[in-house]
Amino acid sequence: MNNPAIFRISPLDNVAIATDIGGIKIGDLVAAGIVATEHIPMAHKIALINFKTGDAIVRYGYKIGTAICDIPMGSWIQEHMLETPEAPALDEIKYSKSIPKQVEKLEGFRFEGYRNEDGSVGTKNILGISMSVHCVAGFANHIITRIKNQLLPLYPNVDDVIALNHTYGCGIAINAPAAIIPIRTIHNLARNPNLGGEILVLALGCEKLRPETIAGEEAESDILYMQDESLTGFEEMMQAALQMAERHLKKLNARKRETCDVSDLIVGMQCGGSDAFSGISGNPVAGFAADLIVRAGGTVLFSEVTEVRDAVEQLVARTADEEVAEKLINEMKWYDAYLDKGNADRAANTTPGNKKGGLSNIVEKALGSVVKSGTMPIVDVVSPGDRIKKKGLQFVATPASDFVCGTLQLAAGMNVHVFITGRGTPYGLAMVPVIKISSNTKLASRWHDLIDFDAGPVATGEKTISAMGWELFHLILDIASGKKKVATDVLGLYNELALFNPGPLT
Amino acid sequence: MNNPAIFRISPLDNVAIATDIGGIKIGDLVAAGIVATEHIPMAHKIALINFKTGDAIVRYGYKIGTAICDIPMGSWIQEHMLETPEAPALDEIKYSKSIPKQVEKLEGFRFEGYRNEDGSVGTKNILGISMSVHCVAGFANHIITRIKNQLLPLYPNVDDVIALNHTYGCGIAINAPAAIIPIRTIHNLARNPNLGGEILVLALGCEKLRPETIAGEEAESDILYMQDESLTGFEEMMQAALQMAERHLKKLNARKRETCDVSDLIVGMQCGGSDAFSGISGNPVAGFAADLIVRAGGTVLFSEVTEVRDAVEQLVARTADEEVAEKLINEMKWYDAYLDKGNADRAANTTPGNKKGGLSNIVEKALGSVVKSGTMPIVDVVSPGDRIKKKGLQFVATPASDFVCGTLQLAAGMNVHVFITGRGTPYGLAMVPVIKISSNTKLASRWHDLIDFDAGPVATGEKTISAMGWELFHLILDIASGKKKVATDVLGLYNELALFNPGPLT
Repeated sequence: MNNPAIFRISPLDNVAIATDIGGIKIGDLVAAGIVATEHIPMAHKIALINFKTGDAIVRYGYKIGTAICDIPMGSWIQEHMLETPEAPALDEIKYSKSIPKQVEKLEGFRFEGYRNEDGSVGTKNILGISMSVHCVAGFANHIITRIKNQLLPLYPNVDDVIALNHTYGCGIAINAPAAIIPIRTIHNLARNPNLGGEILVLALGCEKLRPETIAGEEAESDILYMQDESLTGFEEMMQAALQMAERHLKKLNARKRETCDVSDLIVGMQCGGSDAFSGISGNPVAGFAADLIVRAGGTVLFSEVTEVRDAVEQLVARTADEEVAEKLINEMKWYDAYLDKGNADRAANTTPGNKKGGLSNIVEKALGSVVKSGTMPIVDVVSPGDRIKKKGLQFVATPASDFVCGTLQLAAGMNVHVFITGRGTPYGLAMVPVIKISSNTKLASRWHDLIDFDAGPVATGEKTISAMGWELFHLILDIASGKKKVATDVLGLYNELALFNPGPLT
Repeated sequence: MNNPAIFRISPLDNVAIATDIGGIKIGDLVAAGIVATEHIPMAHKIALINFKTGDAIVRYGYKIGTAICDIPMGSWIQEHMLETPEAPALDEIKYSKSIPKQVEKLEGFRFEGYRNEDGSVGTKNILGISMSVHCVAGFANHIITRIKNQLLPLYPNVDDVIALNHTYGCGIAINAPAAIIPIRTIHNLARNPNLGGEILVLALGCEKLRPETIAGEEAESDILYMQDESLTGFEEMMQAALQMAERHLKKLNARKRETCDVSDLIVGMQCGGSDAFSGISGNPVAGFAADLIVRAGGTVLFSEVTEVRDAVEQLVARTADEEVAEKLINEMKWYDAYLDKGNADRAANTTPGNKKGGLSNIVEKALGSVVKSGTMPIVDVVSPGDRIKKKGLQFVATPASDFVCGTLQLAAGMNVHVFITGRGTPYGLAMVPVIKISSNTKLASRWHDLIDFDAGPVATGEKTISAMGWELFHLILDIASGKKKVATDVLGLYNELALFNPGPLT
């Protein structure tokens, strides 16, 4: 049935996706007995049956909506023709212990990483400058420039120096219940494996977020207070900062890559600027690679609460035990309440670009989105800003906002990022390599120097998901080892960190 | 009564502030019959009477708290000794038409500014690059670097090129009621007088915040979409961006300063890192200068809802008419509800630094904070993110967070910023000059290259508020004219913009 011009995921599906760049032309025979009655753009849906009002429209084997008008076979199914189903009621989801999936272990895969004292492994060797309040961000930028010009050339094993910028720390309700999220995020960001355990905190002195909270218990942590009364003027502050930085640069410079097991990899999966191909090419390939990572003993994180909310029943069925299932449902409940307080719901997730890209609603988007998590059991659920405690596939509960999700995955301990896009985004992070995957070849060709891996051949039938999944797996190991560079690292194209602060400003 | 060692604002006050760097020493006779019974640090309060439990503690002529223990005359009044009064109930405040204050007009004061087509006047000549979504921020930074290196030297009349960075635009609930605030902020930031009406918007293409919303109706507005299908690869995008920038640089470069009336000045007042001196030196001097600006026909903005909430009765009495009074009360109500939703209240405003600096609670902070607004009638109240519509003294309803308040004052149209600090902050904005005022000479000496104006001599009795207010007024005109540079402009020390987004992320 998979005529090259269309792609259908599940045999239960009564719709398929147009795969050709030019879309499906009027009069095209796309399958036995099915002729297109109108032009259908690439990535959009064609009706494979005659729908009557009220019929279920099925994709990925699940109902993505109900037809609100008759839709003849061969026509273009547009957003306004279907009604979005209600979100699954969280209190009614039952956990039933299913037979644990037999996971066939993968052996013998290694990468070259920087091992840290706490057991974590870095894929880059970066000096990070944390800060307790946005007031000092301008000063931090000056320090970065000076370090890059004066010090970094003396420490060639250090890849980069970055500021862990944020707009938190003061002017916020530090005792509000939700403040725990940004506070632990800032704390854990400083402990990302790629920063080598060297913790520098730039502080003002009078802020609400105490710098000691970030510095933590570690003996090597350093705090510089701009309001330190022994420092006179900007240049003395700068010299103090440079001295502090140099102590840590020396230690970072002594690090060497060593052979590590794939079990030391923490791969964060995310998608953004999605189109209908994301769910049939990019995300399945990423999901296949995710399974390989987990089978080799490694860790995969997936996130984006509003993008999995509608697929929660599938995910609960994949949790390793009842406790994890409960954690998952609780995170969804917390987010439902959070959105409700702001008079929004999960339907607010889909973008004009998603819709232009053929995704009719949040249900269709969610079903395509969870595919990137692969098929392994979910061994833990991590609250936003928390660091992971286990190995294996884990759900990190974050907003779907790309940069906020990325920031929280960094706090969770991610050391390689995989990012799938259909419409294209220049998204990049300085702290870890971001492997950018295109869901279609059209984008990969146009953005030849911004895309790292084209999953388009899966949509056109030229390559299989498993073949491309293996390719991606090997690319992840090469990138983690520093043998290959991702596009955003070649260009130095990075987004700032963006905290998730559900609490109020004061 | 104002012995050099202490400072008392109102004759009703039963406490005074220690003004000497060393504080008040045990045994010091601070006024007739009043001997310090313990060491009292600089900026902290000494009891001028014997307080019994339940007595009102009065500063600025208002009750800042109730004694919760007996406090003997001459002792140090610490935070834990007083109970904070309830916030004034907003529904019970009555507006009573008072006799309008006779405003003696000031004539003959001018500055040199850049006049814009819409009638506003710039104090700098800057190319601003707006963006519709954070995804493109990394690209924007690259563009800025290229423009600075390649183009800016060719256009010497242009002072700077800046990115109007934010973390909004996607992954947000664009239809939530509160979304209007960040959206109109981004729109109005692009129209700040210092950007000369040249509106460039860097867009992705699939984001929720439509770039046209920022570009607006202006014929000269330009939008560059990174997803534009005619652009292949990073370098073509960059060339398109540089071409777009150059069109606007040409126009900006043709601008010349011309003599403008003070009525074209829009001065934003803010304080941060406050101590107890802020209310007796820095803020009164700023308030005196604010009166001069308004008397000369100009505009003064003051802000920070949680810092004026406890002084709302004073402010209502100063509003020009009942409509303005109602707008003020409504903004306070909105903020009360916003904080309540996040399980916080206005008491969350005060920082550890405030308390170390002698400010016992939010009431004392508020009474000191409103002093910087001067004494003129409040002619309008502006909602967060909105642009001002009148001239004269106006309340712009913003959070107290320095960078968020500053961003919203920029959106309101501010062209000069006055910032009072007691403990010190390196806060700076690239878009407008920020005149940093120290409340005490100790800070001004230590931060000699970060402070622009020392109001400390008022606290020590060496200079009068009016003399220093006039000095500040003249400094504001010189800075606005580009004749003098503020410290943050000399050092290039700038904070990023920070939006106020009370709505949820998705």
